[in-house]
Amino acid sequence: MRFDVFTLFPNLIHPYLSESILQRARERGLLEVFVHDIRAYTTDKHHITDEPPYGGGGGMVMKCEPIFNAIESVLGAPPSCPVILLTPQGRTFTQQVAQELAREPHLALLCGRYEGVDERVREHLVSDQISVGDYVLTGGELPALILIDAITRLLPGALGDPDGATDDSYASGLLEYPHYTRPAEFRGWKVPEVLLSGNHAQIARWRREQALLRTLLKRPDLLQRADLSEQDKKILKKLSENPEENFPS
Amino acid sequence: MRFDVFTLFPNLIHPYLSESILQRARERGLLEVFVHDIRAYTTDKHHITDEPPYGGGGGMVMKCEPIFNAIESVLGAPPSCPVILLTPQGRTFTQQVAQELAREPHLALLCGRYEGVDERVREHLVSDQISVGDYVLTGGELPALILIDAITRLLPGALGDPDGATDDSYASGLLEYPHYTRPAEFRGWKVPEVLLSGNHAQIARWRREQALLRTLLKRPDLLQRADLSEQDKKILKKLSENPEENFPS
Repeated sequence: MRFDVFTLFPNLIHPYLSESILQRARERGLLEVFVHDIRAYTTDKHHITDEPPYGGGGGMVMKCEPIFNAIESVLGAPPSCPVILLTPQGRTFTQQVAQELAREPHLALLCGRYEGVDERVREHLVSDQISVGDYVLTGGELPALILIDAITRLLPGALGDPDGATDDSYASGLLEYPHYTRPAEFRGWKVPEVLLSGNHAQIARWRREQALLRTLLKRPDLLQRADLSEQDKKILKKLSENPEENFPS
Repeated sequence: MRFDVFTLFPNLIHPYLSESILQRARERGLLEVFVHDIRAYTTDKHHITDEPPYGGGGGMVMKCEPIFNAIESVLGAPPSCPVILLTPQGRTFTQQVAQELAREPHLALLCGRYEGVDERVREHLVSDQISVGDYVLTGGELPALILIDAITRLLPGALGDPDGATDDSYASGLLEYPHYTRPAEFRGWKVPEVLLSGNHAQIARWRREQALLRTLLKRPDLLQRADLSEQDKKILKKLSENPEENFPS
């Protein structure tokens, strides 16, 4: 999988690429990330990348020319892969979108500064627009890293454990069950006995119940899209009759 | 505003704090960020911070002791400010949550590695849990930076332009109107004439209509919570009768 990241702040992208899983994926040849400084593609003497908006108002707007130059120089015209603009206007990023994008061999990520990108970039250059959440950030750099991280985790072989990614929250459409590790007792707070029992069938059942219960209590909206068995539905029915009793914390 | 960030990977946090707006906010004394390495608070010879989960299964779980030690050493017991765990299990971060948190003088952010944090941390140490979106990441570091960025932008004086933050997407509950800057024509694509007209009332009306139209087409869910005038409602009614015609791109 190859990513080309276009940004005015390459230094915000580089450090995260050496992060544990991304670094390993790069070493294994699963991931390549190229970071391009949009400013290097300006053609004027002062390397201007943004100017005040037509029509007035606060903030600066990123000019179209340097962005078109950067992306077309690297990816050709029209670009040889999907070009995703990170913007609050985009479709909402979810684990499902990550799975969809993980099937692409090559993606370009364009980091807007959120004061705004000239509309002609949106209309004539980008092929997709993604928002990582309903909040305002200074730029698209953190969202770009979020996409790279979430997508890389889904590449076969990127996680040490082959089951790692599918067991995570959202992968099955449910919140994750609680985790415990040593010590078995800390300040008087004990690990649930079932986890120390060695009875794997019972542990698996407890974990599934806990995952269902948490999702029911905290994010019932996720249950509508989750992949549920007949057994799951029975458990949910029982839990919804008296959830608090089963989940004191 | 003060943030204390607790992480196993301080190097992932530092670079972003020198990013334009955060750097300026720190120079102006509006923002202080302290980054604490959880590993420095282990008490065993090998500085172990995670171990396999009780009950088996993939991944490693972050141990409770180093986390309790780190947070209580810095913030006292009980901690002197809200302690937020970044986790997919948390409540969803939105611009509204950012506004709520921007009123706090001091917040602690705990970055879980998403394979899991010992449940006792959740039960007995943290006071809030936040998710930045429905996707799986390797750790809480990017989410912590997202909170710091979104919240800092809301601090009075953090943005150069006093109106900057309120004009952004989501701040008014709508998606933003389109932005254009020079050149007035690029590859034959022209800036809408109204923006060159100098008629400020007309420009303001056009922008509001565009913001309403985009939100209607791309994120109609946002309209239910948006702050709409009677005039807005009239425009929306007109637009919903024939949106595509008003918005060809």
